[in-house]
Amino acid sequence: MAADKNIQDRPVIGIDLGGTKILATVVAPGGKIVGRAKAKTQSEEGPDAVIARMIECAKGAVAEAKVDQADIAAVGVGAPGPLDPDTGVIIDTPNLQGWQNIPLAEKLQKGLGVPVFVDNDVNMGTLGEFLFGAAKGAQHAVGVFVGTGIGGGVIINGELYHGFNKNAGEIGHMIIKAGGPRCGCGRRGCYEAMASKTAIVRDITALAGKGKGGKWTQEQFLSGKAITSSVLKKAVDKGDKMVIKVLQRASKYLGIGFGSLINLFGPEVIVVGGGVVEALGEEFLARARRFAMKYSLPLAGDNVRIEVAALGDDAAVLGAAAMAWRRG
Amino acid sequence: MAADKNIQDRPVIGIDLGGTKILATVVAPGGKIVGRAKAKTQSEEGPDAVIARMIECAKGAVAEAKVDQADIAAVGVGAPGPLDPDTGVIIDTPNLQGWQNIPLAEKLQKGLGVPVFVDNDVNMGTLGEFLFGAAKGAQHAVGVFVGTGIGGGVIINGELYHGFNKNAGEIGHMIIKAGGPRCGCGRRGCYEAMASKTAIVRDITALAGKGKGGKWTQEQFLSGKAITSSVLKKAVDKGDKMVIKVLQRASKYLGIGFGSLINLFGPEVIVVGGGVVEALGEEFLARARRFAMKYSLPLAGDNVRIEVAALGDDAAVLGAAAMAWRRG
Repeated sequence: MAADKNIQDRPVIGIDLGGTKILATVVAPGGKIVGRAKAKTQSEEGPDAVIARMIECAKGAVAEAKVDQADIAAVGVGAPGPLDPDTGVIIDTPNLQGWQNIPLAEKLQKGLGVPVFVDNDVNMGTLGEFLFGAAKGAQHAVGVFVGTGIGGGVIINGELYHGFNKNAGEIGHMIIKAGGPRCGCGRRGCYEAMASKTAIVRDITALAGKGKGGKWTQEQFLSGKAITSSVLKKAVDKGDKMVIKVLQRASKYLGIGFGSLINLFGPEVIVVGGGVVEALGEEFLARARRFAMKYSLPLAGDNVRIEVAALGDDAAVLGAAAMAWRRG
Repeated sequence: MAADKNIQDRPVIGIDLGGTKILATVVAPGGKIVGRAKAKTQSEEGPDAVIARMIECAKGAVAEAKVDQADIAAVGVGAPGPLDPDTGVIIDTPNLQGWQNIPLAEKLQKGLGVPVFVDNDVNMGTLGEFLFGAAKGAQHAVGVFVGTGIGGGVIINGELYHGFNKNAGEIGHMIIKAGGPRCGCGRRGCYEAMASKTAIVRDITALAGKGKGGKWTQEQFLSGKAITSSVLKKAVDKGDKMVIKVLQRASKYLGIGFGSLINLFGPEVIVVGGGVVEALGEEFLARARRFAMKYSLPLAGDNVRIEVAALGDDAAVLGAAAMAWRRG
C-alpha cells in the first residue's frame, strides 16, 4: 500500500489513555482528526483487558476514518506516568489499577502491527497545544494542566524535554509554599497542593464544614460525593462568595507558580488547560496572570503569553499523533 | 600567525567581571589556564574605566601566558546580568554602577581586536563546572551558586539554556515559600530570601539583636559591618548553636529548592558553589542533600548527584573561555 510513502505523509493513530476513559483517533497528515472512538477504561479489570480495549478503540477509529489499516504508519499514546518514553513501559501509575512495569508499547504493537510510541499524557497535551493549539509558533513553552492534580510539560527548542530521569517537568511538585498544606504525594506546599481542584475542593469543604458559604454549596461539598469542575462553576454562577474567595486564592497561587516557571524556564508561552480551567475560563486566569507578572522578573516576564489551551481533550491525542510522526 | 588554525586549537581569553574584582585568564586548548591577571573593579569610576581595566587585565594575562597576542582566537566574558548574550550588551545590572545598556562585547572587541562573547557570570560558572569540573560528563545539569544571592545556570542537552527572553535559569527567584520573608527583589519567599548568605545573615542578626547566640557572634553581627562567609564559618567553629540552627534551616530550604529543581529540570547533577558553600563545605550540604531527596519524586531523584563545585573562582573564567571556543 502506502508503505513506500514518507511516514509524515501517512495517517497515524493517536490514543489518550486516561484513568476513566480511552480516546483513540486517526489523524491525517497536517493534524486533522479523521476518525475517533471512545471507551471506558475500567482499569479494575487489569492491564490486559484495558490494552485489548485500546486496540479495539484504535480499530474503531480506523473504521470511522475510512482509511485502510495498512495505511496507518504508527501509533502514539499518551498515558499516565511515571513511564519510560524510550521503551514504552508504564513503570507505576497510581491512576490505573495494577499497572506496574507494563510494556504498553510492545503489547499494543503486537495487537496493531505498527510501531507504537508512548509518552506521558500531559507531555502529549503540551506537544499537541504546541504544534496545533495555543502555543503554536513558540520555541519554548510550558504546559500546565490543572485538574485533580497539576500536570506539566516542557518544550525546549521545539522539542519535549525529558531530562536525565526521563520524567522532567513535574510542575505539580515544585514547592511553592514550604511548610504549607500537605499534597497527595505526601510532601507539603507542592504547587498542586495550592492550586489544583483537589486543593480548591479541600478548602471549600473545610469552610462549608464550618457553616461558611451558601446552602447549595454546603449540600454539594458536604455530601461526600466527588466534586466536578462544573460544580465549582455552578457555585460561582450562584455568586457564592466563599467559593469565589477560595478560587481567587487558588488563582493567586497558580500565578505565583507561573512566575516561578517564567523565571526558571523562560518560556514564550505558558499554556494552561485541564478541567478546572476549562470550566472556569478566563475569569479564573485573570488573577493568575497578574500574579505571574508580579512574580516574574522584569526582563524574564516581558512579552510572555499565558494562554488558555485551545484543543481540550484533543490536545493529547494530537500530541500523541505528532510524536508518532516525529519518532516513527 | 596561527590565524589559519581551527579556533579550538588556539588559546582564548576568559574574563570574569565581578562587582568587586576582575579576573582575566588565558586558557590553552583543553582548558588549562596559562596566564592570569586581576584588578579591582572600582565600578564607581563608570563603565569606560572598568572596560579599560578589563582590557589591561586581559593583556596582563596574555603577557603572563607568554603567548603572542595574535594567537588569541577570541574572548569570553562572564558578567553580571541581566544582559543580552546575543549582542553582548549589559542591560541593567545592580552590581555595577551606571551599567545600563552598555555594549560590553563591542567595546572590548575594539580594545582587543578579536571577537568577544558575553554571557551571565553564573551561566559561565555552570558551563565551567559542566565542562571541566563537578558536572563533567552529564548531559543535563543545574548550577546553584549561593552567595549574597542565589544564582543559577541550566545545561540542557549539553548546552547552556537561555529561553525566550535569554535570561532563563533565574533560580534565585523561584518562589519556595509564598508569603515568606521579603527578597532583595521585592517579592516574598524567593529561594534566595530563604537560603542565601543575605537570608542567613538577616536571621542571625535578628536573633543576635534579641540577645541570642554567643558574645563573639553578637559583636560581629551587630557591628553593622558586612558579614563574610568566613565569619559564618568562624561562628560555626566556635560552636555557636544559634548560628548552627540558622544554617541548618537555610540548608533545609536549599535542599527543598534542589528537590523542586530535580522535579522540574530532571538534571543528572546539581553543582553547588559560591562563597557560602566554599566556606561551610560538605557539612552545610549534607542536610540539603537529605531534603533534596525528600522533596524530589522517587523516579526523578534516582541517581541524581548533588556535587560541590570543584573549580572555585576559575569556574567562570573557564566557562567563559569555553563559550569563546563554542561561539567563536
